[in-house]
Amino acid sequence: MLNVHLVPHTHDDVGWLKTVDQYFYGGRNDIQHAGVQYILDSVVGQLLQNPERRFIYVETAFFYRWWKNQPPSMQKAVRQLVDQGRLEFVNGGWCMSDEATTHYSAVIDQMTLGLRFLNDTFGPCGRPRVAWHIDPFGHAREHASMFAQMGYDGFFFGRLDYQDRTNRIRTLEQELLWRASESLEPPYADLFTGILPNGYNPPKGFCWDQSCDDAPIMDDPDLEDYNVDDVVQRFAAAANSQAMAYKTKHIIMTMGSDFQYENANLWYKNLDKLIRYVNTRQANGSQINVLYSTPSCYLQELHRANLTWTLKTDDFFPYADDAHNFWTGYFTSRPALKRYERVSNGRLQTCNQLEVLGGPSSRKGPFGAGDSETLREAMAVAQHHDAVSGTEKQHVANDYARRLANGWQHCQVVVSNSLAALSGSSAGRIYCDNLNVSACPLTEASKKFSVNVYNSLARPVVWPVRLPVNASAYTVLDATGTPVDCQVSVCFRPQLVNYLPTYARYRCLQMCPKGSTLSVCLRYNASDGKSSISDQASGAYIFRPNSSSPFIISCTAETESIQTPELQEVRQQFGPWVSQVIRLHSNSKALEMEWTVGPVPDPPRYHSPALSRLQTLEVTSWSHRKDFRPTWDLRQTEPVAGNYYPINSRAYIKDDKDQLTVVTDRSQGGSSIHDGSLEIMLHRRLLHDDWRGVGEPLNEMSGVFPLGLVVRGRLLLSLTPPALAADAHRPLAQENVLQPLLSFTEGGPPPGSLLEVCALVGFSGLQAALPPAVHLLTLSQWGQDSLLIRLEHQFQTKESKEHSVPFTVNLQVYTQYTHICTWEPLGTHIHTLFPSQSIINLFMVYLIGKDSVRRPTDNSYPMQGS
Amino acid sequence: MLNVHLVPHTHDDVGWLKTVDQYFYGGRNDIQHAGVQYILDSVVGQLLQNPERRFIYVETAFFYRWWKNQPPSMQKAVRQLVDQGRLEFVNGGWCMSDEATTHYSAVIDQMTLGLRFLNDTFGPCGRPRVAWHIDPFGHAREHASMFAQMGYDGFFFGRLDYQDRTNRIRTLEQELLWRASESLEPPYADLFTGILPNGYNPPKGFCWDQSCDDAPIMDDPDLEDYNVDDVVQRFAAAANSQAMAYKTKHIIMTMGSDFQYENANLWYKNLDKLIRYVNTRQANGSQINVLYSTPSCYLQELHRANLTWTLKTDDFFPYADDAHNFWTGYFTSRPALKRYERVSNGRLQTCNQLEVLGGPSSRKGPFGAGDSETLREAMAVAQHHDAVSGTEKQHVANDYARRLANGWQHCQVVVSNSLAALSGSSAGRIYCDNLNVSACPLTEASKKFSVNVYNSLARPVVWPVRLPVNASAYTVLDATGTPVDCQVSVCFRPQLVNYLPTYARYRCLQMCPKGSTLSVCLRYNASDGKSSISDQASGAYIFRPNSSSPFIISCTAETESIQTPELQEVRQQFGPWVSQVIRLHSNSKALEMEWTVGPVPDPPRYHSPALSRLQTLEVTSWSHRKDFRPTWDLRQTEPVAGNYYPINSRAYIKDDKDQLTVVTDRSQGGSSIHDGSLEIMLHRRLLHDDWRGVGEPLNEMSGVFPLGLVVRGRLLLSLTPPALAADAHRPLAQENVLQPLLSFTEGGPPPGSLLEVCALVGFSGLQAALPPAVHLLTLSQWGQDSLLIRLEHQFQTKESKEHSVPFTVNLQVYTQYTHICTWEPLGTHIHTLFPSQSIINLFMVYLIGKDSVRRPTDNSYPMQGS
Repeated sequence: MLNVHLVPHTHDDVGWLKTVDQYFYGGRNDIQHAGVQYILDSVVGQLLQNPERRFIYVETAFFYRWWKNQPPSMQKAVRQLVDQGRLEFVNGGWCMSDEATTHYSAVIDQMTLGLRFLNDTFGPCGRPRVAWHIDPFGHAREHASMFAQMGYDGFFFGRLDYQDRTNRIRTLEQELLWRASESLEPPYADLFTGILPNGYNPPKGFCWDQSCDDAPIMDDPDLEDYNVDDVVQRFAAAANSQAMAYKTKHIIMTMGSDFQYENANLWYKNLDKLIRYVNTRQANGSQINVLYSTPSCYLQELHRANLTWTLKTDDFFPYADDAHNFWTGYFTSRPALKRYERVSNGRLQTCNQLEVLGGPSSRKGPFGAGDSETLREAMAVAQHHDAVSGTEKQHVANDYARRLANGWQHCQVVVSNSLAALSGSSAGRIYCDNLNVSACPLTEASKKFSVNVYNSLARPVVWPVRLPVNASAYTVLDATGTPVDCQVSVCFRPQLVNYLPTYARYRCLQMCPKGSTLSVCLRYNASDGKSSISDQASGAYIFRPNSSSPFIISCTAETESIQTPELQEVRQQFGPWVSQVIRLHSNSKALEMEWTVGPVPDPPRYHSPALSRLQTLEVTSWSHRKDFRPTWDLRQTEPVAGNYYPINSRAYIKDDKDQLTVVTDRSQGGSSIHDGSLEIMLHRRLLHDDWRGVGEPLNEMSGVFPLGLVVRGRLLLSLTPPALAADAHRPLAQENVLQPLLSFTEGGPPPGSLLEVCALVGFSGLQAALPPAVHLLTLSQWGQDSLLIRLEHQFQTKESKEHSVPFTVNLQVYTQYTHICTWEPLGTHIHTLFPSQSIINLFMVYLIGKDSVRRPTDNSYPMQGS
Repeated sequence: MLNVHLVPHTHDDVGWLKTVDQYFYGGRNDIQHAGVQYILDSVVGQLLQNPERRFIYVETAFFYRWWKNQPPSMQKAVRQLVDQGRLEFVNGGWCMSDEATTHYSAVIDQMTLGLRFLNDTFGPCGRPRVAWHIDPFGHAREHASMFAQMGYDGFFFGRLDYQDRTNRIRTLEQELLWRASESLEPPYADLFTGILPNGYNPPKGFCWDQSCDDAPIMDDPDLEDYNVDDVVQRFAAAANSQAMAYKTKHIIMTMGSDFQYENANLWYKNLDKLIRYVNTRQANGSQINVLYSTPSCYLQELHRANLTWTLKTDDFFPYADDAHNFWTGYFTSRPALKRYERVSNGRLQTCNQLEVLGGPSSRKGPFGAGDSETLREAMAVAQHHDAVSGTEKQHVANDYARRLANGWQHCQVVVSNSLAALSGSSAGRIYCDNLNVSACPLTEASKKFSVNVYNSLARPVVWPVRLPVNASAYTVLDATGTPVDCQVSVCFRPQLVNYLPTYARYRCLQMCPKGSTLSVCLRYNASDGKSSISDQASGAYIFRPNSSSPFIISCTAETESIQTPELQEVRQQFGPWVSQVIRLHSNSKALEMEWTVGPVPDPPRYHSPALSRLQTLEVTSWSHRKDFRPTWDLRQTEPVAGNYYPINSRAYIKDDKDQLTVVTDRSQGGSSIHDGSLEIMLHRRLLHDDWRGVGEPLNEMSGVFPLGLVVRGRLLLSLTPPALAADAHRPLAQENVLQPLLSFTEGGPPPGSLLEVCALVGFSGLQAALPPAVHLLTLSQWGQDSLLIRLEHQFQTKESKEHSVPFTVNLQVYTQYTHICTWEPLGTHIHTLFPSQSIINLFMVYLIGKDSVRRPTDNSYPMQGS
């Protein structure tokens, strides 16, 4: 008997063509008909009508919005449905995160937010057993590793490379075991992985949503168009055909799609009939059995089959849905949003930490009521696979940014309150959020001001502080009165004076005298779809250059250089919209390349991604990934786009002697197409939609003036012998992700404040720095009397002789509030420090490891335990 | 306090863009998203959730389909909703009939079918109190008269001439008293009539159906786009604005539209909120009170206001929605369907009568099982305002025709069984349905055959029988062996040999010798919408000629004539696609003009309606209707289309001395634009859609060959002094509507049959003919032991000196089956004759009067009483 598991489901994007709240309410249905409030209303009503029916729900951001508006009677009914397994949560994070452009720490946070809500609301029966990433455009090994460590029993997704799918259909390998980490001992990062048969859609002809046009089951013989026999036959054909591509006598059909089930009656009424009529045929010898099911029920049957699944150890990038349709553009799409999301992650961690360190008055203090929740939810929403990915409509991108900004407003109150508690000073505190464009009204106007620098890392960092000022000479003192080295240089702002992504001879630059001429080239023109091979245009999702050779912007630059004992700086202007500043700080082991790109000139010549190509003269790189896939014999059809990969925080090329590692300040796309080269796509401006639904060209504008957006960013380059590379880039990347938070007060320390009394300029929440391998991933308030601390071993196995080893960390808990009046230049330590007499539940330590770290006693669920 | 009655409703066309069954099931949603099964599922579910909610339902054709598929538990729940007034039926016929192109007898039948179902199912609480014609395109006085006589308390509609509406808004006369008959003594035909404020749609901005894009009420202050204040303010503005156009402190808002409420949750959830938030403002002094209501509740409040309403005695034709947009094309659209519907009406009456006369064996007899129900339902569906009106898509028109054909197949079995019982012969019986194109395989092939002629009128008629034969000499005998006069003439069939609508000098023709030359002209070219005045094109609904002067097809004809003692016949061929046969039978007082039009030639010259203009030389007509409306000062903008009216069965022009009456064989559009002329539009072929939703040009094709449809029809012309006109045209029209049914058997009467034994050639169900004023409107089986008989006084008051007087009819009931072996040439009498020992409930005599006939004791409800 062939068992067909029908899985009724809806896929509810946490923002895409509409904002998350528009989707929830069903606002702006002129853009897309979708209203999640009605979906949940309708599904619950339909589940209550027939105990056989099942439904799975995924996105807690929506479920939470719905739940809090339900009366107790409805909440009770839903709890019963959950307890009985008729309503099952899968995945269960706040959103279904993107896998290419998210930072793992933000994914853990958003999963925690969603799963915690489910646990608090429904207890064990609300716990998702299955990870469900049916829509993201490629799949990361790191995500699978996280899911395995979170204790999911299996993982299902819908999109993979079309060649890969064809191959797996042939070899019956659409179900497999993913070994998702080299560092963690199996089976800690092993995850059963299933590739769904129709993406996440129903088989052709069986879509009974209000948004579909397939014929309903018409079973009244008195009426026209009676079609029961036809439907049953077509279904049997679909089931048998699907069964040919899988190993067991159980198959799964996803009966739903984007925002479906708003009128669940249509689906369920027809599915009820389908099940009845198909199963009735068993009396006549039919070998097909159809049932309402869920992914976890289906998974259970697969486990019972007791088969051995093929092992996979690499990832599912890049994703191509056809020969000329590589979804590698979104790795870079909306670079400003990608950076803003990354900055906001740092701010959230800072806010979390200071909420703990400042005690209850952080949330309600001299600066009013604040909270970290708003930014936490905004960050969780921003992890969605059409959020930080840059594949949403412009107004939705604006909404994500607005949410992050609003969250930061709430957090600023927390931070100000906390710093007031810690410093004893309630002096007005300013956050200059526009320092990236050298704007800070206070420092530009004031003759005397104080700067507070908060480092959220668990170890000291050296960090240059660059502030816009208007005078030409300043004295910088720490609070002990000791002068600090500084330099006043000419500020430049990015109004249209910009420049290029680079072709930087890195080795040369590092060694040659200032002012050396650099050879420069760079960017690809995008395909407009007018090609004889394929009409696919570049868009928010898809990257498709019209040639394999980049178009050179300029081979010469206007160059200006500065050299002081602290800093060597070269400024290069390659043209009206591309510029670069190359800096080498005296204490730094990394070269900084600050790029400014935009506005990319108007059509038709210049719609294109701009990119930086780093050409080493000495590294003869060997790329494992070029024109190669580990699990099948690739037929490469797009020599550039088909070799692009997501660069989430760093990328490197290396040979036996050297490794060039580039640390990025946001997610970007990149490739090593030529030997010794590493190219990174910095910015995109496009004039065509790529027909993947977003319905807009990716053509971001600057403010009110209709000019293309100007974006600025920073690459950090480290060149080391391969054996020492990780020792450099691991801390470098963490420093780049969690940059210090600066805040400003007018004048010096207020009289009578702790700052004045004990000359407190340094405060640390830690008694000592954590070991270099151990990263403080999370320190945040959990409940009124509980905290969440996550420590991470950040070195991968074998990558560092010194650090790729197990560590034991002893957490000491202080019950006494302590001030440490010692100065540690440009760095702070974080102690696990709590307000006096508070009760501390250090209820969870969650270790994400790239190495064989000691695992926590229960790692199966990020919010589990107490 | 201004009371706003919110009336949740759906308007479910019984066929339009999709067939009635496609609409019921939600099939072919690619054409239009609409599924009535889901609407009823959803509405009932939502009504059960909140006792305040109300809904009205209109079309019993759909409700019946839904009801019979419901389990007893659901039927019980719905009965409770009906008993509590939460679900209220309005109108309640099988469909919402068209008012321009339906025959009143078929409307009574379809209303009976729907209302009977409601009465049988729900009893008194299911009785509709309100007639509800929100969509038909103009409103007939006859319909209002019928509704008044059916006992409705009021009538609401949505469409009327735009000038009329503007005027009524100004004078607060959108609510009025319609005195719908000159013959019936007031208040028997008086009906309160309300014109709805927004057609039948909600006010702008308040459409919360899944098919609408208006913003939902977003009332969670934690989410974006909170809009409660905005919604409340906009609603108050809409309510106050509407109140300005009506007389009382109660106003009605129709919250629904075409096929809405498929997901009723969207509507009700937002309406619940609207009511809550608007009424909450009363505490702050708001004077607006919103409530769920129904038309009958609203009507009750209007009655309580105790106002006097303006009286109206004319009709609401023609309907124009703007200056150049007169909905007068559909009076003629699809002339073949219109004729087929009219023929089917006659067949249904014959089937009904013979089902009664033949007793139970009519339904199950020697020819198998038959029924009249199928044709009754097909006819009821065909009365819909997008059915016989000709304004549906082509595939839907085909469906209506198919249903009628299928119904007739079922009825043929009844008729054959009944005739077998009545004649004692089970000889195979043939129905030649294609006699209109002179096709009947049996008569064409057989050397000896019998013809049975059944007359469903309650009085004798003289009727020429024309049959296609292949030999040149025949003897026609009645069953007594007496020869009957006959004539063999040359048959012609309509393959592309066709002709014209006429300009017939009627008086001349009647008097002149055969072969006279007739002057001929005729038709309008349709507007293609390319005009500087308006871009409205002619379409299925709209007639808009591009000039006021018709285009002359031909002024000469090839003519051929026949003259015998029985018949004068002139055949005229005006061109390749227009021909006419003019006949005057010796016993007839009417001249017959048989027209054949088509295929109207292809674009671009000839897309147009073809019409017949009758130009009298002697009648100086005065038209009350030209460029004139009785209730407002008309600004005429379309001199032709704006003067077109529906001709349902006859039209006339007259002066003091003469009246020319034309009796049509189907509904057509016509006008008297010039003095002494009467023009009738016969056929239409159009190349543009008129943007009223149907989305197709009205371009009917003949069979498989892509040629325009050929249509044939008949006009009967009667010229009399005005005082005698009704005496001629009343019986003439009834004879034309209920034509005799011919059936054929091979050979002579079977040996031993009653036909042979007593030479039965005449059988009558009546002992004597009814008086000329009294028409047997209905004789049909009601229940197993009951019949329905309807008698109608068919003369209008004062139109006939002899017949426009009251009659008393004594109905005698026979309990004995009787054969009458007497011959009455070419006619039969119908007796109220029943099978032996059957119990007869002559439970209802329903009188429709155009005169002051004696009224039945209870005429308030067509299926009431027992």
